[in-house]
Amino acid sequence: MTRVRVHNFAVSLDGFASGEGQSFETPFGHAGHRLMGWFFPTRSFVEMTGHESESVGSGTSGVDDAFAAATSVGIGVEIMGRRKFGPQTGPWENEDWTGWWGPEPPFHTPVVVLTHHPRPDLQVGETTFLFRDASPQQALEEAVSLANGLDVRLGGGADVVRQFLKADLVDHLHVVEVPIVLGRGERLWDGLEGLEERFAIESTASPSGVVHRVFSRLSR
Amino acid sequence: MTRVRVHNFAVSLDGFASGEGQSFETPFGHAGHRLMGWFFPTRSFVEMTGHESESVGSGTSGVDDAFAAATSVGIGVEIMGRRKFGPQTGPWENEDWTGWWGPEPPFHTPVVVLTHHPRPDLQVGETTFLFRDASPQQALEEAVSLANGLDVRLGGGADVVRQFLKADLVDHLHVVEVPIVLGRGERLWDGLEGLEERFAIESTASPSGVVHRVFSRLSR
Repeated sequence: MTRVRVHNFAVSLDGFASGEGQSFETPFGHAGHRLMGWFFPTRSFVEMTGHESESVGSGTSGVDDAFAAATSVGIGVEIMGRRKFGPQTGPWENEDWTGWWGPEPPFHTPVVVLTHHPRPDLQVGETTFLFRDASPQQALEEAVSLANGLDVRLGGGADVVRQFLKADLVDHLHVVEVPIVLGRGERLWDGLEGLEERFAIESTASPSGVVHRVFSRLSR
Repeated sequence: MTRVRVHNFAVSLDGFASGEGQSFETPFGHAGHRLMGWFFPTRSFVEMTGHESESVGSGTSGVDDAFAAATSVGIGVEIMGRRKFGPQTGPWENEDWTGWWGPEPPFHTPVVVLTHHPRPDLQVGETTFLFRDASPQQALEEAVSLANGLDVRLGGGADVVRQFLKADLVDHLHVVEVPIVLGRGERLWDGLEGLEERFAIESTASPSGVVHRVFSRLSR
């Protein structure tokens, strides 16, 4: 049974998943790197990116890494919003640009990119991006057909996660609460009143300062 | 040195400290008792209210109670918003009503009630309510003069806590994050962008499902 999973989805104390003013240089807007600061030192991130550095060596292996490590286990496909691919809006003006993720994106699976402006499939390294103008249900149907019996990871942003939560299509939601107040940006929780009734929720505080919350869908 | 402390200040995942539709019967509006559900079973609450019951006996003594127990230690005075005294708005229509807290309110100290509609001081049991139309700074000045060298507890609601945080008058802020999505009501964090820069923040997950966050003011 294919599950739909969200991992490492970071929000501020005031519930913002990204800041204002997203651009090529600032994927999280004025939030900068602060929402993902807990993630970069982990062994999982270092291995994923090859960004070994003097400050973190081969990476930490505590609770933050335990959560990070679960991200790719058993995943056959990702669904993401267009703005996780790039900051453009409207019709694509430059299809030569192949996204934020460099020559070898960390997905290594098909990735369904939700956009109102489809474009041809794009192979970058081991990752194939498929651009689809589709409802959550339609996108999930295609993703499942591509997943080879594995799970579907829902990659964000907030708008996409919110839509799937509203449609009750999410089985596993890992939210990372970062102790900063962003004040503005895109909120995760809007329109989801009563969400807790559909999930078992477990919370773990990390020495890094973040809190990991895992929402596990109750049996239907 | 008198400190200004906030304790047991509960917010939902989406940052609401109370729901919509506050009334005499529903002090937290549509949130009902859910924001304080972690508090009621604690030994501190049972002792404070005398509400010993078959279900909780004399109360729990885990991490939730540890935080609850700190609430009244070393406190000489409380400052609260008018709506923590009662749900009325505008001019007082009935001064015979002595607040939500019954014949023996749990404060046992002077309580400064912030309101644009002052009324005579009111003694209820061991608690004296003083109704003041005052700025945070003015209210704090009077509170300190009443505190006998002890600390000032800032009792909420969200609007009052937010005003004092904006004015940088809070030394200790204990926020309890409750895993529910309220969707509407009064937000705590609005207008407080960058708050984290003024505080050391420590997070503790409780088996009850809530997360305790303690904000300790950095040295000035």
